[in-house]
This record gives sequence, C-alpha cells and structure tokens, in this order.
Amino acid sequence: MHATDPRPHVVIVGGGFAGLTAARTLATADVRITLIDRTNHHLFQPLLYQVAMAVLNPADITVPIRWMLRDQPNATVIMAEVDRIDVPQHTLTLDGGSSIVAWDYLIVASGARHAYFGHPEWEGNAPGLKSIEDALEMRRRFLLSFEAAERSSAAGQREALLTFVIVGGGPTGVELAGMIPEITRKAMKHDFRRIDPASARVVLLEAGPRLLPQFPEALSARAERDLRELGVDVRTNTAVTSVDDAGVTVASGERIFAHTVFWGAGNQASPLGKQLGAPLDRVGRVVVSPDLSLPNDPHVFAIGDIASVLTDAGTPVPAVAPAANQMGAHAAKAILHDLRGTSRTAFAYFNKGDLATIGRHRAVASIGAVKLQGNIAWLAWLFIHILYLAGFRNRITVFVQWAFQYITYQRGVRLITGTTAHRLLNTSRDRELARAEAGSMPPKL
Amino acid sequence: MHATDPRPHVVIVGGGFAGLTAARTLATADVRITLIDRTNHHLFQPLLYQVAMAVLNPADITVPIRWMLRDQPNATVIMAEVDRIDVPQHTLTLDGGSSIVAWDYLIVASGARHAYFGHPEWEGNAPGLKSIEDALEMRRRFLLSFEAAERSSAAGQREALLTFVIVGGGPTGVELAGMIPEITRKAMKHDFRRIDPASARVVLLEAGPRLLPQFPEALSARAERDLRELGVDVRTNTAVTSVDDAGVTVASGERIFAHTVFWGAGNQASPLGKQLGAPLDRVGRVVVSPDLSLPNDPHVFAIGDIASVLTDAGTPVPAVAPAANQMGAHAAKAILHDLRGTSRTAFAYFNKGDLATIGRHRAVASIGAVKLQGNIAWLAWLFIHILYLAGFRNRITVFVQWAFQYITYQRGVRLITGTTAHRLLNTSRDRELARAEAGSMPPKL
Repeated sequence: MHATDPRPHVVIVGGGFAGLTAARTLATADVRITLIDRTNHHLFQPLLYQVAMAVLNPADITVPIRWMLRDQPNATVIMAEVDRIDVPQHTLTLDGGSSIVAWDYLIVASGARHAYFGHPEWEGNAPGLKSIEDALEMRRRFLLSFEAAERSSAAGQREALLTFVIVGGGPTGVELAGMIPEITRKAMKHDFRRIDPASARVVLLEAGPRLLPQFPEALSARAERDLRELGVDVRTNTAVTSVDDAGVTVASGERIFAHTVFWGAGNQASPLGKQLGAPLDRVGRVVVSPDLSLPNDPHVFAIGDIASVLTDAGTPVPAVAPAANQMGAHAAKAILHDLRGTSRTAFAYFNKGDLATIGRHRAVASIGAVKLQGNIAWLAWLFIHILYLAGFRNRITVFVQWAFQYITYQRGVRLITGTTAHRLLNTSRDRELARAEAGSMPPKL
Repeated sequence: MHATDPRPHVVIVGGGFAGLTAARTLATADVRITLIDRTNHHLFQPLLYQVAMAVLNPADITVPIRWMLRDQPNATVIMAEVDRIDVPQHTLTLDGGSSIVAWDYLIVASGARHAYFGHPEWEGNAPGLKSIEDALEMRRRFLLSFEAAERSSAAGQREALLTFVIVGGGPTGVELAGMIPEITRKAMKHDFRRIDPASARVVLLEAGPRLLPQFPEALSARAERDLRELGVDVRTNTAVTSVDDAGVTVASGERIFAHTVFWGAGNQASPLGKQLGAPLDRVGRVVVSPDLSLPNDPHVFAIGDIASVLTDAGTPVPAVAPAANQMGAHAAKAILHDLRGTSRTAFAYFNKGDLATIGRHRAVASIGAVKLQGNIAWLAWLFIHILYLAGFRNRITVFVQWAFQYITYQRGVRLITGTTAHRLLNTSRDRELARAEAGSMPPKL
C-alpha cells in the first residue's frame, strides 16, 4: 500500500503516555507513523481509580487516540492486537496473522498488567486496575456489594458483603482505600433502608513495612494516619497467602471474609517484551541500552512500563506517567538524531515528584525537597491533574465537567452494567453458612 | 422480617417511568413499598439513542433508583430478577428462588424488549435498543466499524463496514439514522487517513408505507425529506426477510451488505406478563381492566409497556414515557382510593404529543393541533428533554453537562470497551471475498 512512500516507517505499539508522546514528538518529522493499540483510546490512568469508585465517567478520562492525532497527517492509527514481533525481519503481525506490518523503526510501549506473584488464579476474585474494563469491573463489584447487602437477611453474609479488602499499599491501594469511606458516608448516606453503608469496613493490606514505599518515610506515616482517621484498617507487614471467593488469608493465618477484594500490588510487563530478543528483568521488563533501544537492534525501542531503566541514583525509574512521557520523547528524539546524522544521547530520568490522594481533601506530595501533606497537597494534586487532563482535552470542558463531577458526587456515576447481584450472594462461604443453619428456608423479604 | 409491620405492602416490579411514578405517588401513603428492578438504575430511555451514538455518557441518562427514592422512607429498593409471580398466593420469587416476597398490592411495570417477528436468531446480528447494555453494544459496533474499515485493504469489505442498516422507521430508527451522518461528517472529520467517514452509507428500512406512522402524514413526509437531505437512503414499503452476519435481505430479494445492522422495529412485552393469569394481546401485553388492575385480581396492576390499554378513540396507548407516567400515577391512586374506601376511577390517557429528532437541528413535533418541524421543533424537543431530565437530576448539573456534551460533541464519548475489531473483519462474506481472490496473502499495511 505504501510501497512507494519513501519516508521511514515508524511503528509504535501502544497509545499510552509513552507511545503517544513518541508519536507527537515526531509530528513534524519526515517519517510516516503507524500507531497500533488494542483499544481505541488513550487512558488518563492516574484517575482510573475514580472511575472504579463511581466518581468519574469512563469517557471523562479517555480520548480516542485518533482524535488526539487528528491534526498530525504523518500519523495513522490502527486498532488491533499485536500478536507476534519478529525483530530480525523487522515485521509484526496483527490479530492472529490477519495482517503484517513492516517497520524501519519500532517503538514498543505496550505497558504492564497487574501481577499476582505466581497466583494468576487469584485474579477472578481480586481484580486489578489497569484498563477501563478493569475499572468498570471494580465499579460493578463495589456497587453490587451494597445492593446484595441490602437484600441479605443473614448478618454474617451482610458483614462480608460490606467488607472491602485492598491488597497493596502503593498509590493505587491508598487512593482506593481513601475513596471508599467518602462514598459510603456521604454519597450513599440516605439510599439504603436495611444497611448503613457507613458501617462498611475497609482493610488495606501491605506486605512491606510501610505504605507508599517510594515516598519519604514521614509522608508514608502521614498517609497511614490519614487513612486511619477515615476508618481504614491499615495493616503493614501483612502478606496475603491466598485469595478465594470468600475473602483473603494473610500470613498469620487470619481469614478476612470479604465478598470484594481489589488488587493493587505488583506489575508484570506486557508479554510482547519476551519477543524482542533482549534480556528481561525479574518482572518481565526489557533491559534496554542507555538510549532506550534494544541491545540487539538500535532500530527497536522499548519505553514506558515495559522498559527496565535505572535512574542516575541506580534505582528503577518508576512506572508513572511523567517517566513514560519522558521516555516517549527520548525515543522519538533518537530517531530524529538518526535522520539528521547526529549522535543519540543517553536517557536521563527527571523526577517531577510523587503524589497520592487520601480521600477527597487530603494528599501527600513529595516534589524535590518539598514535602506537602493534608489539604495543601490535595490542592496541588487537583491542580496538577486538571492541568494534565487539560493537555489532551478542551481546557474549559474538562475543568467544568470535572469540577461538576467532583463537587456534586452525591449522585456520581453509580451505574451497574452487566449481571445482577445474585452471584455475590452465593459464594462458598454463603453455602457453608447456609448449611450451618438447620432446615433453612428461602428468606422472606 | 416485617411480620409486625401493619401497613399494606405494595410491591412494584420495575423502576422505569411507570414503576417509579407509582412509587412516588405513594410517597406519603401509609404503606410500605418494595420496588424491585433487575438493574440499579432508572433509565431516561428517550435519550438512549444518544448513548448508542457516542454522544452522551451512560451515566448522563441514568440515576440510581434508590437515590431517586432516598427521601421517601416508606420505600425500599431491591436489585433482583423476578422469576416467578404467583397471583393466587400473592407472592413472587427472586433470583431462582433465593427469596420470596409477599404482597398486599402488586404493580407489574417490567416493560418490553424489542421483538424480531419470530426470528430471535436475528438479534446477534441486529441488536436493539432498550437498555444501557444495548446502547453500549450499539456504540461498540458503530465505532468498531470505522476502526475495522481503516484497517481493511479490501474495497468490498470497507464498503460493507461503512454501511449501516437500520430496521424500523419509528422514532428510534429515525433518530439513529439522523444522528449517524452528523457524527461521520463532523465529529470524525479529521480522524482517519485511509477512509472518509463521511462516505458512510445509512439505509433506513421501514416495512410500512411511511416513517413515524403515529405522526400526522405531513410530518412523516417532512421527516423523510430531512433524512434524505442528510444523505440517508430511506426505503419505505421494504420489509426485511433475513438478517445474517453479512447484512440483510429485503422482500424484493435485494441483498444489502452491511457489517452493522441496528434493530428499531417491534416490541414484545416482558415475559412476566404471561404469569399473571390475565389475557394477553398479540405482542404479549396484559389486557387490563379500566382501572389498570387485572380482571382476575384487583390487587394486581399491570402498567407501562407491559399493559395493553386503549385510548378514548379506541387506538392503543403508545409505549412512550408520558403514558407510562400517567399509568403509574393512576395505579397508585387506585390503591389510595382503596385505603380511603373511595371508588377507583377508569384510566384515561392524555396525549401530550409526539416528538422525534432528525440529526442535530431538525425535528418533527405533533402537540395537539400544533404541528412543528425543522429547527423550531428541534428547540421544542431540546427544551422538553432538558425539563424532563431536570426532573430527576440536579437542574444546573444536567443543563451544563448536557449542553456541554451536546455542543462540544466533536470528541464525544467515542469509547470502545470490550473486544477488539477482529470479529468484524471475519464475517461469512469476508471469507467468501477472500476465497474469490486467488492465492491471497495477508495484506501488508
């Protein structure tokens, strides 16, 4: 189709922060770009937990990738699944071999999924949070728990339905845990007749000694204190040893009965990394050269959450949006250097800081030497996120809509799509409890 | 559980317009109300097609039922599926017998689904539009067609991917058909490189002699003219004789190849109607007494789209929101009459008028003797819908949000969730076309 197009073909796999920034950095370059993503949208992942907690609409934090590149004529967007990458041949195949794409440069930015430490069977009972589908599944389970509890006539069952266990004390876990009490105590306040949503129990489990391990210790302590004030049962040094449909078991042997378990621990790089012929680190990330290209092929780059890169201090570059953006720009600039005949440079990560919110008016922030907490950190968080969101959407639209969604969240986006609540009322423990009740009859409402 | 509550128990099945209005009409009555719905939300169905066409968010037109009744202490909301109604025993069972509900009064308002005229096998290839799930499936197919077309390298396949067939010339069909050209010509204008979305073909098929048969003839003609001006291929007197994954066949034998077919023809009442022991009409609706109760039990009512009721003129009361609201209020008032010892009255339908939009700045409206068309009818439509929506949501929120969504729909809610585009590229006709090409190789992008 493009046999006659003399421009180098840059193929980018993944339309997240890394891939999209790479495409945009090449906007005026004399190349043709094909960006391939399995979804049609770029996702503003830092706010994904707000979709999971029924505060924001999925469309509030997603934008069609092709819409973002609409004014960039050198870029074509293809929605497809990449299933095989052949580095020596410089080709990849889409959707079970239905088409083949040849490249001059390849940028792999296909991200990561959550990982279950060798227990993939836990996923069904403890969904993680990486995609919009993940967030909608979390939202569904979160909201269904209250619906099922309102119907339940057994106290033990009701208690398990109103227990939410979150595994992992990183930013995702902390943000999820901090949001639940706000919703149960405020947004749901008057809506139920038989249960009090405010009685919901939130348990945050972290295997390590403190929450938010990438933050300074003082901020970890503050986050823990803030969460406790919101009523969250925070347990550090508490590893999960099993997850099933009735709840979780922790290393001490304690069983926590909960119909709803959310997973915020551990990442596993996209399996495409395995096909690149380069060494991988422990979690499957591609160990790249200083310019972010493969040791075995300078025309192929791995960037974003799929890449294993060290900071100047020798610590891993974190899996956050600013790092992905920086790597995307760097890989694109390496290609520009090649086109101009100048030398590529080594990637250097610039840490813009770390931020995590706790509920609606508290946050912790570590920006260079500055450490913020409480309301001022929350305002900083709000400001930065509005600024970022505005970068890819109409500035006024996003501000008004988001402010509205956020301020008026009394109603929120409490929409359940999919199946009914019935499954939640029929776990292994429910059957056990039912057997324990002699001659049990169907409850009368 | 409520063995000691002396108030009569009014059980309402369905939280649509009819059921919700019945519950609200009983707000101050000395009864206890249990409203049961299989979903957690009330749906503003008149705008459902805008969700299907990626203009509005699902949450923009849904509200949790329990939130709408939060200030009505005599009402409890249960999310469950009703699977058996026993009229003589005055009980119903939920979710496969998991619980039993006894009533003093029962109001059945479980609505209707679309019907396929004895061809349920068509549904997989021609989804209809009654629920949020339906709308999301339509949105997914609509958006995926363009994604798949952008990837396709076969002209015949591309053409079928960009052909949208809509079956049924009632308000739903007319509104869907009128919206597509607006989106393909404006919202998607700059987004594709290999296809021109404006070249999409929209075919509207109506078995009867004219569109919008419930409207005056002059307005039907105007709607047809407006649609033709938008480029829609309107075909009246054209019955569909089969639907498969490659498109539709019409009575003349003509085959229209289309990857996307939407169904806007025919209703079938909820199957719960069959369990009431009352006579049913041709489409399964319950033929009720003049007070909307069952001929066989005055303590059971059937209202909304599940009820077969005639107007004073002897024509069927249409399946529209105002009719459902009026029936809901009437059934509730019949119960109030019983409680006060006064006589029930007969239901009389008051026709507030008919409205249908064509694209974004045209509509037809028939309100009493007044007939409107063009832009003025569209403004009337806008005003009435904002007013209605405002009735169940914060007045300012809805106005600002909706206006924003509507005015800035350049980007819209073009979010695909679920599977990838691959299925759309592998229909029976694609395989046929592929076999026709001798020695075909996977296309190179």
